[in-house]
Amino acid sequence: MARRSGRRPGNPDTREAILAAARDAFAEKGFDGASIRAIAGAAGVDPALVHHYFGTKDQLFLAAMNSPIDPGAILPGLLTGGRDGFGERLVRTFLTVWDSPAGGTAVALVRSGVSSDWGARLLREFLVTQILRRALAGLDLDPAEAPLRGSLVASQMAGMAIMRYIIKLEPLASAPAEVVVATLGPTIQRYVTGDLTDAVRLLGATGTGPATDRATGPTD
Amino acid sequence: MARRSGRRPGNPDTREAILAAARDAFAEKGFDGASIRAIAGAAGVDPALVHHYFGTKDQLFLAAMNSPIDPGAILPGLLTGGRDGFGERLVRTFLTVWDSPAGGTAVALVRSGVSSDWGARLLREFLVTQILRRALAGLDLDPAEAPLRGSLVASQMAGMAIMRYIIKLEPLASAPAEVVVATLGPTIQRYVTGDLTDAVRLLGATGTGPATDRATGPTD
Repeated sequence: MARRSGRRPGNPDTREAILAAARDAFAEKGFDGASIRAIAGAAGVDPALVHHYFGTKDQLFLAAMNSPIDPGAILPGLLTGGRDGFGERLVRTFLTVWDSPAGGTAVALVRSGVSSDWGARLLREFLVTQILRRALAGLDLDPAEAPLRGSLVASQMAGMAIMRYIIKLEPLASAPAEVVVATLGPTIQRYVTGDLTDAVRLLGATGTGPATDRATGPTD
Repeated sequence: MARRSGRRPGNPDTREAILAAARDAFAEKGFDGASIRAIAGAAGVDPALVHHYFGTKDQLFLAAMNSPIDPGAILPGLLTGGRDGFGERLVRTFLTVWDSPAGGTAVALVRSGVSSDWGARLLREFLVTQILRRALAGLDLDPAEAPLRGSLVASQMAGMAIMRYIIKLEPLASAPAEVVVATLGPTIQRYVTGDLTDAVRLLGATGTGPATDRATGPTD
């Protein structure tokens, strides 16, 4: 990310120390709870150097995750057009990334998220703060329903990625993108705009409220 | 498995050598291509001892995967009632296993499948030969459509398992089972019985035929 955004690559050891400290902080305190100051302290550098190397806290998170994409750059295009046809657009955009050379990096991201509890916390923070919050806000969904809708979408997209690109289950693994769009698009669309009243009522009755605040809260 | 089925546990080193040889064989040659004779040879034991310790090739595969369930024991109940309501029944049964103490073993199974190409091949063989073939045959689906339907179901179920039990994305992670049944049930039902004509036509046009034979072939 640093190179592409024109920032100076800097000393490789220092960069890696900052990224390692950032991964620890984001996994342990969450994205919102982690501060650039604390990350710099853990890496033994000045906070200004962290900004100099990596930019904003969002950009530092992308670099720490070795993210194949910048969701902040992709989501606006995806959200143009609103809820209508969002399911198909999401699946098509997702496949464009995963079927590209960046797909290998995406596979590594999922593997590291599934391999340990620490990796899982990091990937969850990434999903919630870098992708779901922004997508759900952009779609202007009912806040009482948005987190459930977001986690359902994430479940289908993650499962497709794993079966198509990691487990390589046929015919999904070799199917043309349009087959995946035609089959998963309506699923995603229902998760985003379908009637989930019964499920949301069942959910509300068991008090998972905090999760709602968590996933729809501010990005900073 | 050996203990529960009444078989003698046997020498732990010999047992483990057989299981390791079985994992290698199933990953490298596939379930159909691996023979008890070759597995016994690789483990340096007589084929009769493999049968004595583990039973059939299916039972050996379950032991080698440390499978939390015996799909052959669960599927018949699930398939009773046919296609109607199959989506909800599958999700409910799946959650019963994953929400039980066996869930930890299921998490380990998924982790090992995602962690390496070797693990992925093994998990794919397990899914196809132990679960999908039997389920698809039991539902009496059009053979031209069955493999795609099966891989779509697998994608949603795997993604739910990963988000709920490994990444622990809220509110899916803490949601009561009935919320998951109400939201994912209709998705699974559509994948099994919905109209996928367009997707199947697109798929047929690109010749993924062998995969079709593969997933609907005999179990022996």
